[in-house]
Amino acid sequence: MTEPLYDFRSDNVGGAAPEILEALLAANAGTAAPYGDDDHTREMNQRFTALFERPVRVFPLSSGTGSNSIALAALANPFGAIFCHETAHINVYECGAPEFFTGAKLVALPGRDYRLEPATLDEALALAGAGNPTRVQPFALNLTQPTDFGTLYSTREIAELCAIAHRHGLRVHMDGARFANAVAALGCTPAELTWRAGVDVLALGATKNGAINAEAVVVFDDALARDIPFRMKRGGQVLSKARFVSAQLARYVADDRWLERARRANALALDLSRRLTALPGVTLVAPVEINMLFLRLPDAVVAALDRGPFRYYKLGRDARFVCRHDQEPAGIEALVDCIRGAALPGC
Amino acid sequence: MTEPLYDFRSDNVGGAAPEILEALLAANAGTAAPYGDDDHTREMNQRFTALFERPVRVFPLSSGTGSNSIALAALANPFGAIFCHETAHINVYECGAPEFFTGAKLVALPGRDYRLEPATLDEALALAGAGNPTRVQPFALNLTQPTDFGTLYSTREIAELCAIAHRHGLRVHMDGARFANAVAALGCTPAELTWRAGVDVLALGATKNGAINAEAVVVFDDALARDIPFRMKRGGQVLSKARFVSAQLARYVADDRWLERARRANALALDLSRRLTALPGVTLVAPVEINMLFLRLPDAVVAALDRGPFRYYKLGRDARFVCRHDQEPAGIEALVDCIRGAALPGC
Amino acid sequence: MTEPLYDFRSDNVGGAAPEILEALLAANAGTAAPYGDDDHTREMNQRFTALFERPVRVFPLSSGTGSNSIALAALANPFGAIFCHETAHINVYECGAPEFFTGAKLVALPGRDYRLEPATLDEALALAGAGNPTRVQPFALNLTQPTDFGTLYSTREIAELCAIAHRHGLRVHMDGARFANAVAALGCTPAELTWRAGVDVLALGATKNGAINAEAVVVFDDALARDIPFRMKRGGQVLSKARFVSAQLARYVADDRWLERARRANALALDLSRRLTALPGVTLVAPVEINMLFLRLPDAVVAALDRGPFRYYKLGRDARFVCRHDQEPAGIEALVDCIRGAALPGC
Amino acid sequence: MTEPLYDFRSDNVGGAAPEILEALLAANAGTAAPYGDDDHTREMNQRFTALFERPVRVFPLSSGTGSNSIALAALANPFGAIFCHETAHINVYECGAPEFFTGAKLVALPGRDYRLEPATLDEALALAGAGNPTRVQPFALNLTQPTDFGTLYSTREIAELCAIAHRHGLRVHMDGARFANAVAALGCTPAELTWRAGVDVLALGATKNGAINAEAVVVFDDALARDIPFRMKRGGQVLSKARFVSAQLARYVADDRWLERARRANALALDLSRRLTALPGVTLVAPVEINMLFLRLPDAVVAALDRGPFRYYKLGRDARFVCRHDQEPAGIEALVDCIRGAALPGC
Repeated sequence: MTEPLYDFRSDNVGGAAPEILEALLAANAGTAAPYGDDDHTREMNQRFTALFERPVRVFPLSSGTGSNSIALAALANPFGAIFCHETAHINVYECGAPEFFTGAKLVALPGRDYRLEPATLDEALALAGAGNPTRVQPFALNLTQPTDFGTLYSTREIAELCAIAHRHGLRVHMDGARFANAVAALGCTPAELTWRAGVDVLALGATKNGAINAEAVVVFDDALARDIPFRMKRGGQVLSKARFVSAQLARYVADDRWLERARRANALALDLSRRLTALPGVTLVAPVEINMLFLRLPDAVVAALDRGPFRYYKLGRDARFVCRHDQEPAGIEALVDCIRGAALPGC
Repeated sequence: MTEPLYDFRSDNVGGAAPEILEALLAANAGTAAPYGDDDHTREMNQRFTALFERPVRVFPLSSGTGSNSIALAALANPFGAIFCHETAHINVYECGAPEFFTGAKLVALPGRDYRLEPATLDEALALAGAGNPTRVQPFALNLTQPTDFGTLYSTREIAELCAIAHRHGLRVHMDGARFANAVAALGCTPAELTWRAGVDVLALGATKNGAINAEAVVVFDDALARDIPFRMKRGGQVLSKARFVSAQLARYVADDRWLERARRANALALDLSRRLTALPGVTLVAPVEINMLFLRLPDAVVAALDRGPFRYYKLGRDARFVCRHDQEPAGIEALVDCIRGAALPGC
Repeated sequence: MTEPLYDFRSDNVGGAAPEILEALLAANAGTAAPYGDDDHTREMNQRFTALFERPVRVFPLSSGTGSNSIALAALANPFGAIFCHETAHINVYECGAPEFFTGAKLVALPGRDYRLEPATLDEALALAGAGNPTRVQPFALNLTQPTDFGTLYSTREIAELCAIAHRHGLRVHMDGARFANAVAALGCTPAELTWRAGVDVLALGATKNGAINAEAVVVFDDALARDIPFRMKRGGQVLSKARFVSAQLARYVADDRWLERARRANALALDLSRRLTALPGVTLVAPVEINMLFLRLPDAVVAALDRGPFRYYKLGRDARFVCRHDQEPAGIEALVDCIRGAALPGC
Repeated sequence: MTEPLYDFRSDNVGGAAPEILEALLAANAGTAAPYGDDDHTREMNQRFTALFERPVRVFPLSSGTGSNSIALAALANPFGAIFCHETAHINVYECGAPEFFTGAKLVALPGRDYRLEPATLDEALALAGAGNPTRVQPFALNLTQPTDFGTLYSTREIAELCAIAHRHGLRVHMDGARFANAVAALGCTPAELTWRAGVDVLALGATKNGAINAEAVVVFDDALARDIPFRMKRGGQVLSKARFVSAQLARYVADDRWLERARRANALALDLSRRLTALPGVTLVAPVEINMLFLRLPDAVVAALDRGPFRYYKLGRDARFVCRHDQEPAGIEALVDCIRGAALPGC
């Protein structure tokens, strides 16, 4: 087993937060109707309604890929186009699931710092061939917030992109696998980051921030929710004992601990970033805005890291380090020591 | 909340067995690679290999519908036909998921007591138009064991059906959502009920028998396992923190408690059946072979039940009662009293 | 090459009617926009509007399977159910194309003489589980008129079935691969047989009655037509030089020759039926209402037929003979002689 | 109706070559089995076998989109990736049909002059994540020859790209909608341009070069042909009277007229290109290698053209002119005159 102290692979390699585990255990009492027709699911809906400051429809799932795919299927027809950044998680790391569930095509656009840019989107939509039967038809915009490279859209940027999308008749999906990290980093409210900025459907992930396979499709327009139960069942996304996911999600947003965890992970990454980029030869591939660092490292550093005991992901020539909510300071210190030692061999 | 004592709706309305919960909690320690590349998943594979007395490939999922669909997708091409009983769960209660994941068509056949019959299958396959491009091509046979109406195939019957399927070039999928109840009732080994009888892929459900959204696709032919990781990801069936499902499944088959629970539930149902069918006007719709009763009840009994506090499902004019592994004897007594009181008003 | 005189295999083994060929040749003059944005296609729309006595939207295709599939895709969602007779062409002979194009599931019902019956349909829809996410949702009814076994619904029966479908919220698709034979046999108008009786979309085949790979999707509700161009393109059903199909279809319905051809073929089959069923051992499998005969024949007759020169299809123990619009009387006589000779060896 | 003299919109706005029409008419004689089991289809197979100097399996279709999609479905699994140039016809102008038929994802790559480049392809495949379940798996390479912008790969370039694809385990599909123009321009044999260079499946279009909705899927590896009949039927791509397409295709390659037509169209475009680019302000957007010109034109020229009688397509700020095989010289002269008049107003 990997020693957690040295494990920087991802925020999904860690476990659950104590109060989430307690909620899961508490949900074991009594009997409950299956498939989401239970009190825990109803409570989850109420808590999300409170969190987002408006009525929402929330569906519990256990897969983030499923969550994104179901959300997108509510927006796009089989002959549709879903616009996204070329590095979007849905475009690269879901093995075609969004296309499978929607039948639509992902249209990938470039953009600085892994973010879509308003002018690029606007031009792409203008040239998308709306009404032309030889072209897939624009239906949805995907925003990955934070991006897979740990960068963030400001609420103003999201509003601007949503406005462009809506003007062209598209609906907006936010992939919020690390939604907590985004809210924590931006200091905004969940409402400001989503429906107030124009987001129609949110896939909110809790798994990476202290839950156990607990994801939520949050729908801000009731009409979009109508077919979701059928699409979920057909897609194998309905949980027999849904209460065990709903109970986690209800607890997740019941107080501010989800944000505190995210804030802590973000802060660890920022601190790590500052200390490492002070070293010779260590450069950032992407700005550090949440709990992830993408670094270009000197060969000697890579060699030192490869001697262990550290775990992290390599992406081509780059290295990714993710700070979990429960990352221990000692591990951070050890990582800095290792990299410093290799980058500054004389010291 | 429903009072568990009186809840006979389904075996998925109950909670988890104590040792399963413990295993889930224990899996929370340390970090682990996501997506099934972890020690708990490896242990699960080993334990299933021991249980089935041969090497198997096991994949953890959280949805029974997903489990069936992934298993079938390993067997059938998009232009394929999957033969099943007309009351098969995959044909009636999965909102088209098997067709969605496979692209294939389900061909539904009749059969006494909700079971496929060898002669019917053989004739259907002979007339299926193998090689004729206007016809969907026979690829797979689905056996639901136990059936959705609680009846069982004997191991001999399974072997006979599998032999017919194999002779016609089909592979065999067993939907074992209540696999434990079948093994317990038949007194056979898991191996005898599956690959020794000719089953190629098993969808084994643990959720209804004491686990929390834990299902396994068990593959008996390594070649069939090759594409499953890709199909699972594309189908939103891969769990980010798969270890929490694998740990449950590994524990589930680690000793005989899964069979003891199933035996207990089966016995409760059989006892209930004997006592109820002794009453006037109470008749069985299907033989009671596992933990489910399908009854035709006098109107007065239905009226009495509807006054509460009992919970059960109505299917048209019939009533379904399911005994959970943790069903309390007092609830059984209360149910018998209620039905007896209405069926024998003078007593 | 098969001698046409003796060829009773199908009405799609024959060629084109002279005026259809002329229309096709005439369409070769000049240039025209591709993909159906041409004058021939516009003329086709006008002529169908005249024929059906109301505005219709008509789309030209070259495949009957494509035509049915596109029509159904306008009616059914991916999690939908399409109700049809168990012997419906879309259920048996299109290799799953309707499911591929719609994502929906075909629900097959029994019915005397290969026709759906109102009570059966009504009951099936009542039990279909509308609103229940575990069940595919009722979206469409398919009526195959004539049926694949050459039987016909009366306009009253169609109206009754459509009324039931509409009452349950379904839309109605008519598979009119032999629409001409139905109109000719019933002596009704195309309008009476379709939208006046409640049909929402018609797949009208001209290929079997004198055209060359020319089929039309005829939409009676403009809202249903909206997405068809996109679904056609995505399904590879849009013709680059659509004018060559549209010109055939425009000519096809420009006068009454399509009906005369169908009447002639129907009459030949009826005559053949009367003469053959007068012979000992020759019995009808299905009533002869259009241009097809399904016969059970004595072994000696089958043996005689197998010596040639006749061509016909065998379906299990039965024999199918189809009379083409250009079937020559001498071939009919020869066929009767052959069968009579074998059935009455002494004569 | 558009005056053909002035119609430069596309090569699919024109009619059929005389001998193709004759072949179509001749196919009307007699009866023939439907769905491609006929003598014309067999003859077509033989003629293509002769043309390609090796046994091939050829399937007749009426849609180029269908042809590409069926060919790709023979190569790629539903969780697969199909690599293509970002301007590939299959990626831009088929409304998602290739994805619909294959289930796979198109991965679009950049490349100079609308052509894929070996280094780009090699790097993309190296980074494609083969074996990683979160990534779509590399299955096929699409080469559009000629490209949609009228540029050509040399046979050496095709061989190099195919070698890279094969080295990474991919099969190669060539979209040959204008295959004749490529063969004519390169002066190579059909064999050299395809299987000798490593192409596994070819979608050969005849429609744009003198046929009527006649396309062929040409398979160079028999194993790849096995499932095509089923996929074609399921995709609505099987023609009831396939002989009318097969007869055209058999005639199409029976002598050199298909190449002569293509050579003529290519020569007209080259001549036009030379004369127009000599004018001030008229520049080529893409090299002219076949029968298509993509031009950037001065505003005054566009204004002059818009006054008529010319027909051509605008793509954003650019203009596309296509020379048909039967384009009349007088039309070319008129077009040059118009553009020259506007570009050189004083002359």
